[in-house]
Amino acid sequence: MDDPQRRRSGGRAARQALRLASHAEHVPFLTRKLAPFEVLGEEGLSLIEHNADTILEEVGVEFRGDAEALRLLAAAGADVEGVRVRFPRGMCRQIVQASAPRQYTQYARNPERNVEIGGMHTVFVPNYGSPFVRDLDGGRRYGTIEDFRNLVKLTYMSPYLHHSGGTVCEPVDVPVNKRHLDMVYSHIRYSDKPFMGSVTAPERARDTVEMARLTFGADYLEDHAVITSLINANSPLVWDSVMLGAARAYAEANQATLLTPFILAGAMAPVTAAGVCAQTLAEALAGMTFVQLTRPGAPVILGSFASSMSMQSGAPTFGTPEPALVLYVMAALARRLGVPFRSGGSLCGSKIADAQAAYESAATLQPTVLGGVNFVLHAAGWLEGGLTVGYEKFILDADQCGMMAVFVDGVDMSENGQALDAIRQNEPGTHYLGSAHTLANFETAFYRSDVTDNNSFEQWQEDGSLDAAQRANRIWKKMLAEYEAPPIDPAVDEALLDFIARRKASMPDSEV
Amino acid sequence: MDDPQRRRSGGRAARQALRLASHAEHVPFLTRKLAPFEVLGEEGLSLIEHNADTILEEVGVEFRGDAEALRLLAAAGADVEGVRVRFPRGMCRQIVQASAPRQYTQYARNPERNVEIGGMHTVFVPNYGSPFVRDLDGGRRYGTIEDFRNLVKLTYMSPYLHHSGGTVCEPVDVPVNKRHLDMVYSHIRYSDKPFMGSVTAPERARDTVEMARLTFGADYLEDHAVITSLINANSPLVWDSVMLGAARAYAEANQATLLTPFILAGAMAPVTAAGVCAQTLAEALAGMTFVQLTRPGAPVILGSFASSMSMQSGAPTFGTPEPALVLYVMAALARRLGVPFRSGGSLCGSKIADAQAAYESAATLQPTVLGGVNFVLHAAGWLEGGLTVGYEKFILDADQCGMMAVFVDGVDMSENGQALDAIRQNEPGTHYLGSAHTLANFETAFYRSDVTDNNSFEQWQEDGSLDAAQRANRIWKKMLAEYEAPPIDPAVDEALLDFIARRKASMPDSEV
Repeated sequence: MDDPQRRRSGGRAARQALRLASHAEHVPFLTRKLAPFEVLGEEGLSLIEHNADTILEEVGVEFRGDAEALRLLAAAGADVEGVRVRFPRGMCRQIVQASAPRQYTQYARNPERNVEIGGMHTVFVPNYGSPFVRDLDGGRRYGTIEDFRNLVKLTYMSPYLHHSGGTVCEPVDVPVNKRHLDMVYSHIRYSDKPFMGSVTAPERARDTVEMARLTFGADYLEDHAVITSLINANSPLVWDSVMLGAARAYAEANQATLLTPFILAGAMAPVTAAGVCAQTLAEALAGMTFVQLTRPGAPVILGSFASSMSMQSGAPTFGTPEPALVLYVMAALARRLGVPFRSGGSLCGSKIADAQAAYESAATLQPTVLGGVNFVLHAAGWLEGGLTVGYEKFILDADQCGMMAVFVDGVDMSENGQALDAIRQNEPGTHYLGSAHTLANFETAFYRSDVTDNNSFEQWQEDGSLDAAQRANRIWKKMLAEYEAPPIDPAVDEALLDFIARRKASMPDSEV
Repeated sequence: MDDPQRRRSGGRAARQALRLASHAEHVPFLTRKLAPFEVLGEEGLSLIEHNADTILEEVGVEFRGDAEALRLLAAAGADVEGVRVRFPRGMCRQIVQASAPRQYTQYARNPERNVEIGGMHTVFVPNYGSPFVRDLDGGRRYGTIEDFRNLVKLTYMSPYLHHSGGTVCEPVDVPVNKRHLDMVYSHIRYSDKPFMGSVTAPERARDTVEMARLTFGADYLEDHAVITSLINANSPLVWDSVMLGAARAYAEANQATLLTPFILAGAMAPVTAAGVCAQTLAEALAGMTFVQLTRPGAPVILGSFASSMSMQSGAPTFGTPEPALVLYVMAALARRLGVPFRSGGSLCGSKIADAQAAYESAATLQPTVLGGVNFVLHAAGWLEGGLTVGYEKFILDADQCGMMAVFVDGVDMSENGQALDAIRQNEPGTHYLGSAHTLANFETAFYRSDVTDNNSFEQWQEDGSLDAAQRANRIWKKMLAEYEAPPIDPAVDEALLDFIARRKASMPDSEV
């Protein structure tokens, strides 16, 4: 899947999608013109790689409740004792580098929405996993399937988000064992951007694959990644049976997985950045090795989710300098390994879309972009350490993502960009507002935000003295009011609904 | 002034300061361990330097109302026609590089507060120039001398701000022609951090120098920079008589100046980043050349203040991607020239300390730090495009400055930082909260913010559901309540008060 230009024909859905392509405004995924920012040199990075190998060799990683995983790993040369797997130095790196693609295309049902994951590209993906939602009108409450659909619709309409995401919120009003069906359907039906699959049980991952086959055509999946799914480690140094089962389901269908150690430094790993990085690399390497042994060539993303901790309360903290350093190091390690990288987002600990939320989110999103993250989960909406997704926060974050797309384009050094003739023709002390160069570049010179208020104080007062969250509140309501679903082949829709009905009827409701 | 280790003895005040050093908590100015982020390579940077020389050679710069400046520049080889000065290619660079220091020490009356300006150092300096102040209780109102003193006191008490700044707000209740006396006195009396001088008229600059001589001893200034002052260009391509006169007054006393083109792109320069950069470099080079001809070796800082513009209203906009690109380029150009660099800060267009303010400020402060800015004016308090300084915003921004100090320290690669033994001793699946390594690093592992709330939602609710600005409101009030002035030699204080009384008595009040 290394070549984005590989054949895209063959799938029924791909052809349908071309035919049905909707016209929602969008800005393509980012393609950086800027080299990533680095915080460690060769020596430091090598040392962390060495330490990761030491961890894999001496301590090892536990693969729990999955005899098949243990068998596979032993057959590939690992030392297996009970559920503990120790890897000879270099083994994981060799296996991953032998078959994992450096970059892959995730195909969407609208080919205009296909995204490139890896290399110089950055894809923004919304919030994931929050049981609560918040908006200025309703406050904080459990998420519902209606909230889920709303967030999918807002993501579809946002020109700055490139991917529909996965569990954009938990639809708590739907039984746990059936939720995934409604979630995956919502992504397919209410958006045409690429999406993520269920990972809460292996059979739910298989349901996701099945629904993707109904949408794209069964054969299509064999050589097109249409699902990218989040597989979290149970840090420190454990992969559990649910995650391994879900990863296997996707890998067997040649679909992509994000192997992500989720680390609250000081709790799931040492408190120090270099320690967090070595352990993260070890855990991710072990997970990616399992996937590559299961299906060589199935796309994998090296994930890193690291947060600092309040030493007073033990609560996770975000937007602090320590996780930013971890992010920059892990991004460099992923580049050296040669796999796409996932980290960052618009993370914060704040309960509401206030200055704390924005400072913390920006202090995560800037390193995300400057470090060269490829797959940015939680790019919009995250509040309260991920417990809540906020409608207003979503709008504010997406606007920041839009700015990032401009930033990574770098400095225009064309003659028009240099503007030397404009300066030559402009007398000292005379303004440029009416100059031909200004007029010619007027429309595209600067990023235009719909959320920020740059009017005079008096005008702002006259407009109601709204804060950013209040303006965002108006924007998401307007977007939902104007939402139009992208077209879908009625036969596909019917097949999906039929599949869901049958699956739901096949089992009683369950809250696990 | 290239050598920070040069003799520091000799001054009466320096000895006094040592004796009287107060114990306000502080974190030293930043010394980066990280290479700066670059957005342009050699080719692009050379081209912009070439374009700056083309501007200086073909268009030239006007030096208005200052015959002495024209005489000096002509004598040095410039082509002077009326007030228009054209410079042979390379002339300015040569003059600046011949005598301007790469780095200098700004001395404070407490030597523990001396700062290094240039090189790998970053000094955070508060807001400058706002006629309005804002706090949650009083809303937006004209600044007073009491507000000025409050902001000096808060800056003195903030461990993360290294410099007392200059016009932290305009004390509108004091006549314009006497304001500078009260402002400079406030910096000296209520703080012991380094400060900035008046530039609104050449004689006010001379008053500032005189007050510094009374404080530090007259001879001391000859080889110690104790004042750094802001000299703004009248862009495009004009230096006016007030600014030239103030710059001369400081240069003659061997004091430091920031030569800063203040550019709203599309109004004072072309709309494009590369055009803004070439013009900024040309203007700054011309200004620094004037200073170096006036007093070779007087410290100069290359300044760049660039904002984007709302193409709807013409209002300046902040925290957008375009000024960030300009900042990164200008920082690289200053490094190549070999002079300290000023830019950035916590800039925003928002009227209040909301999410817009924080996003925009962070989107300016991150490039400020990653780009390697040396002198960061407006690091705390700025609102509403600089029209207002906010008390709560000040507290929130200073907290971000504190995080930056941790960030630039980079990744600790010591054995303790690597934590390999801690990982070796920790079984997979077992948390690190009680591990010896965690306990040993507990106190210093993470930056601790006093402003952010990372408690549970329930705890936060119980605490009153405060937003970040409301928490900051409590903090600045507590700080002011606990403020204690640093000690000052009573003879110095008396001399200053006597000087101020005589100067005030010597002229009628004036509002210009």
